[in-house]
Amino acid sequence: MDTSGKKITILGAGLVGSLLSIFLAKKGYEVSIYERRNDMRAAGAVGGRSINLALSHRGLKALDAVGIKEKIQKSCIPMPGRMIHDMEGQLSFQPYGKEGQFINSVSRGGLNELLMTEAETHGVTIHFEHKCIEVDFESATATFENGRSVTSDFIFGADGAFSALRAAMQKTDRFNFSQEYISAGYKELCMPATADGDFAMDPKALHIWPRGEYMLIALPNLDKSFTCTLFFPFEGKVSFEALKTEEDVMTFFETNFKDALPFLTNLQQEFFENPTSSLITTRCKPWVKGKTALIGDAAHAVVPFYGQGMNAGFEDCFVFNQLLEKYGAINAELLHEYEALRIPDANAIADLALYNFIEMRDKVADEKFILQKKIEKKINELYPEKWVPLYSMTTFSDFRYSEALAMGKKQQAIMDSVLAHPNIEENWEGLDFESIIHLL
Amino acid sequence: MDTSGKKITILGAGLVGSLLSIFLAKKGYEVSIYERRNDMRAAGAVGGRSINLALSHRGLKALDAVGIKEKIQKSCIPMPGRMIHDMEGQLSFQPYGKEGQFINSVSRGGLNELLMTEAETHGVTIHFEHKCIEVDFESATATFENGRSVTSDFIFGADGAFSALRAAMQKTDRFNFSQEYISAGYKELCMPATADGDFAMDPKALHIWPRGEYMLIALPNLDKSFTCTLFFPFEGKVSFEALKTEEDVMTFFETNFKDALPFLTNLQQEFFENPTSSLITTRCKPWVKGKTALIGDAAHAVVPFYGQGMNAGFEDCFVFNQLLEKYGAINAELLHEYEALRIPDANAIADLALYNFIEMRDKVADEKFILQKKIEKKINELYPEKWVPLYSMTTFSDFRYSEALAMGKKQQAIMDSVLAHPNIEENWEGLDFESIIHLL
Repeated sequence: MDTSGKKITILGAGLVGSLLSIFLAKKGYEVSIYERRNDMRAAGAVGGRSINLALSHRGLKALDAVGIKEKIQKSCIPMPGRMIHDMEGQLSFQPYGKEGQFINSVSRGGLNELLMTEAETHGVTIHFEHKCIEVDFESATATFENGRSVTSDFIFGADGAFSALRAAMQKTDRFNFSQEYISAGYKELCMPATADGDFAMDPKALHIWPRGEYMLIALPNLDKSFTCTLFFPFEGKVSFEALKTEEDVMTFFETNFKDALPFLTNLQQEFFENPTSSLITTRCKPWVKGKTALIGDAAHAVVPFYGQGMNAGFEDCFVFNQLLEKYGAINAELLHEYEALRIPDANAIADLALYNFIEMRDKVADEKFILQKKIEKKINELYPEKWVPLYSMTTFSDFRYSEALAMGKKQQAIMDSVLAHPNIEENWEGLDFESIIHLL
Repeated sequence: MDTSGKKITILGAGLVGSLLSIFLAKKGYEVSIYERRNDMRAAGAVGGRSINLALSHRGLKALDAVGIKEKIQKSCIPMPGRMIHDMEGQLSFQPYGKEGQFINSVSRGGLNELLMTEAETHGVTIHFEHKCIEVDFESATATFENGRSVTSDFIFGADGAFSALRAAMQKTDRFNFSQEYISAGYKELCMPATADGDFAMDPKALHIWPRGEYMLIALPNLDKSFTCTLFFPFEGKVSFEALKTEEDVMTFFETNFKDALPFLTNLQQEFFENPTSSLITTRCKPWVKGKTALIGDAAHAVVPFYGQGMNAGFEDCFVFNQLLEKYGAINAELLHEYEALRIPDANAIADLALYNFIEMRDKVADEKFILQKKIEKKINELYPEKWVPLYSMTTFSDFRYSEALAMGKKQQAIMDSVLAHPNIEENWEGLDFESIIHLL
């Protein structure tokens, strides 16, 4: 397999497909994207209330590599920490990292539009309303529902969690695949700007109402609204299924999200009109077959709780581009190294994201957890090179996800034993931090 | 969901579909089976050299429940243990269980034909050359490639590891699914009867040539041949990929399966003409959707190393029949209990089967493993109710697979500590077995 040819097909004009096309166009490839939906830009500007995402170091690094980091940062709202809302509406702020470190609330639609337009300025052609239904791996031919067939030198499947390329691969022998849904789903709700045109809450935070088995979160938008998302079990005693009437919903929010309720001005209607969506993790191996490769969600859809889905997909593009510089062409060695590097990292971020749901909905409200964060912060200050908290490794660095996960497990084992010390709450500042570091 | 109706569709006339149809017909249901292949009986009797299977307690119990155990046992060859062949062709026999316990070598084709014919005598109709391409879960309608559509009161997908019903379920929201291939594949080879018409080896055993990363096994057939199966990595230094010429194959067999080679009279030809097949494990949840349910390999394909694939499928039928007696109709409660009972058991036998590949190809040749089996046999003799070895729980009992797996893990932890005793090889008979039993 050696793609000396320069014609590239990308399935999917989403965030990852669009960014990948820019990387490839900048390397001189002739790139065509085929997207099953119509052009979201033609349908009128997507408002600031669309789903927002958390853009962080890995994503920004990839955007920087194609020279559009600054442009995109203009549409970002920095969130330096979590704002925890307790049952009584009391607030407490937990910084994500060090002074000056933050994640960014950004509109999915806005970012996607910007990336598509940027791609077009680099000569990328985007064909909308092209739903791929079949792929021939050896000839790099994609066939679409409208009857068209396109042959190029290589096909990327950047077509999301329900990828057509992956579905084609799944029909071949020895393709490992899993799709796992968690028992919770989510529903988005809008918290509009206040009557006097301001944010209803502090915009410099990702807001969380942690409630054990479920949670509400809120991210700020440029139009001073927040997009709130309720992550909630589908079935059971306290669940979407159990909230049957507008009264049920009001009572539930009054009890559990008292301080948010006054700002959710259209709650009753939205709760029953907005969709309830499911949350999937997919894993697969291989990612490469013949002259085709998976990238982004098509290769590794993860749950959203680490805010890393888009960042991981952008990092796929960054890594692929690095390999292209190393090997000079999309050849067998490149593709082998792409899989060898990214599959373990994708599996690691999938695990981290699943775990972080528990952290967000439950642990952030836990005394021991807060104490652990304090101790870790201290150790990190003393030994900034040796002990980087897991959240920081994942979010503010480009340590490989698989290495971050392995290191995080070591750290947790050490912290478990530290937290078991008698009266640790009072005397943690007297710990022998030097010896703790040596346990790593 | 309450199927008071009596019209049942079964997809697949394989072993499980055919047996299930007999259970249902005996309960008064009007059963039609739709099978994608043609009638294997019309194609001429399948010889004794077709793939053979190991029929054991769970399968026999289900066959007994429909009154055909004796009929089928006539075509069985009892295998009371494993015959281990070392590199020099030295033999050692390891019994599977107690005196009088054995598993049965039986021809898949022969058994399948017998079950289909038995089903027909109970009024079941089998429609061949009906490949299902779509299922409507709510109306229990199956659509076939030939254009026919059939609506009934309930549909069972007994259509194997690549089930059409499961594929339809997989397209729906919140369907958990995984397919994992192991890195080894398999190839069947025939060891015919000798010139004077006898078995080439002792037929009262399942023969194993354990070679660490791979193995050859052989099961006896009624025509005095053996079907040998080479389980072997697809790729790597010692693999299917690496054996390129007839000479490579001969050298490999001379070195590793010296005593089998003289009897593999058509090895060179068969090795390159017979297919190399892959080995899959599938897991999914739910098994029930609307008026449809999965059963057998369609719900839980497992690797063949515990000889439990068919037995687990037959046990699905047995359990379903028990539930039908408990609830009187295929209703929501029945279906819920069917899933609650069988999904954990299917996952357990999937795990056990994966583990048993390591046991068969590697551990059976290990001194410590053989010693452990001796000690376990002794404990089982002393406390036959309390300590039943894992293999026996799985093969010779109807303990739930999930309970057998959990108990097996406990036993292994105990045996690991017992085997760590100094000089255990010499002094194991002096162990305090009473205290060992109390560790359980």
